[in-house]
Amino acid sequence: MDRMPSNLTLYADLVEQELSRLMPEEHSLFQKEVFSACRYSLLGGGKRLRPYLCMTFYALCSGKDARDALTFASGIEMIHSYSLIHDDLPCMDNSDYRRGKLSNHKVYGETTAVLAGDALLNRAFEVMSSPDQKIEPANLLRALHVMGTASGAYGMVGGQIIDLAMEGRSCTADELWKMVELKTGALIWGACKSGACLAGASNELQEAAYQYGLCVGLAFQIRDDLLDLTGDAALVGKPLGHDAENEKNTFASVYGIEKCETMIRELTEKALKHAEAFGDGAEQLRNLALWLIDRTY
Amino acid sequence: MDRMPSNLTLYADLVEQELSRLMPEEHSLFQKEVFSACRYSLLGGGKRLRPYLCMTFYALCSGKDARDALTFASGIEMIHSYSLIHDDLPCMDNSDYRRGKLSNHKVYGETTAVLAGDALLNRAFEVMSSPDQKIEPANLLRALHVMGTASGAYGMVGGQIIDLAMEGRSCTADELWKMVELKTGALIWGACKSGACLAGASNELQEAAYQYGLCVGLAFQIRDDLLDLTGDAALVGKPLGHDAENEKNTFASVYGIEKCETMIRELTEKALKHAEAFGDGAEQLRNLALWLIDRTY
Repeated sequence: MDRMPSNLTLYADLVEQELSRLMPEEHSLFQKEVFSACRYSLLGGGKRLRPYLCMTFYALCSGKDARDALTFASGIEMIHSYSLIHDDLPCMDNSDYRRGKLSNHKVYGETTAVLAGDALLNRAFEVMSSPDQKIEPANLLRALHVMGTASGAYGMVGGQIIDLAMEGRSCTADELWKMVELKTGALIWGACKSGACLAGASNELQEAAYQYGLCVGLAFQIRDDLLDLTGDAALVGKPLGHDAENEKNTFASVYGIEKCETMIRELTEKALKHAEAFGDGAEQLRNLALWLIDRTY
Repeated sequence: MDRMPSNLTLYADLVEQELSRLMPEEHSLFQKEVFSACRYSLLGGGKRLRPYLCMTFYALCSGKDARDALTFASGIEMIHSYSLIHDDLPCMDNSDYRRGKLSNHKVYGETTAVLAGDALLNRAFEVMSSPDQKIEPANLLRALHVMGTASGAYGMVGGQIIDLAMEGRSCTADELWKMVELKTGALIWGACKSGACLAGASNELQEAAYQYGLCVGLAFQIRDDLLDLTGDAALVGKPLGHDAENEKNTFASVYGIEKCETMIRELTEKALKHAEAFGDGAEQLRNLALWLIDRTY
């Protein structure tokens, strides 16, 4: 806890306000319900880790105000939110709960949930390409392309595909790493790399941001798997033991607890090494990585 | 038929090849199925009207080779394709057939169909923002933003929302016009306007492209409704009378056949008026509009 980056709450508040502005309450008879469904899943707090990473890398690489990247970064959170809504659908993971509240389709029905996901994804790219951002067009394009790749069939959607294909059978270690690199990892490395792109960073820094995000993303997921097994439900804020119950393939089930702790340490080392490329910024990235990976909730 | 634009088939072939390149066959065990599902709905011909409009407006406004806009235009077709897959889902329109063949989820199952739609939409924005296009970054950004708006909750998705909300009850004329302006119209006016944006056209020409697309899109849908009622099934290539059977709200059911023909004529007049803004290009846009609106299939 004490390692939590000091500006995390500040950024999360900014993102919350921006998301509410970008996906407003709609009062027209027809649109009301879907916008309400979008806001149900999109708003209401959370760490807003992905926007935080994007804004942080933008500020570190440009030396400018992180808020220049606020709209773009909020678009990444919309992509995250759409993916959770579709993931929970009856024909996908069929989850009734998400973050301690009913999942989107349990409240709004399946039809609205599919459309709300689609609306969020389209809206994400709409706001990320918005011309009234304080970002150089060529840099904005590069960042958009990174996020398109990170969220699609060669990124997050690809991870969902692998995850569903592995259901009900044990998987190889290779499959598990690839799945997590894409399903959880892609929006995290996408956020880091797109932040660097927004700043017009060199290819070397873009690559370092990607590698940092990849290592942190993987370690983050291993920690998540361990918490599901050994965590304190009150702190984590959701029922635990869910993965084992559903015979999910997780790092914990494939490698066991001890080996997972070793892998987390190794990935953290690697992340910190890539953070060095950012000079004075390395310290901030170091704290962030240690906080994310050592968390108990 | 005789009015069919002479370069329509040429462009459609280019788009078909480009789509196959952008969404290739994947051979990895996991990805194979979803890519196959994407290709099932995406490839195999069709008029490719939306890419055609985008490329045509680009060429008219820039004086350059329409192929510069091929990748971007193909992305619009991917958005169109994703929307049809999700539209047909059991929780949406629950359609078993699309263009004379089984709908995506009937062949690949619901899970894969949701993911294939998501993959196509993400991939669309990925390729449309691709940095190796021969388009000025600032122009590309403007075009991306137009398509984000056209495809989202204030565009096509908004139209789907209205359409579903109207199901099973009669609607007002206002609702019907708004629904069609968004559901069918948005990708058509989006294609026209984004083509103008790609060329760096003036705001006036962007607006003329939008208005032309809107009029043509509305007239196109009215013709479609009439064909469902009075067309020759062999020419149209699908079973007809579907709308009436499902008590769908259509222009034909709200206005009757005669009034529909009048509205088509009026919209065509308006479209041709907006086409005049494009000087020497007006003739081509005129032929296109007349062909689209007078079609018997």
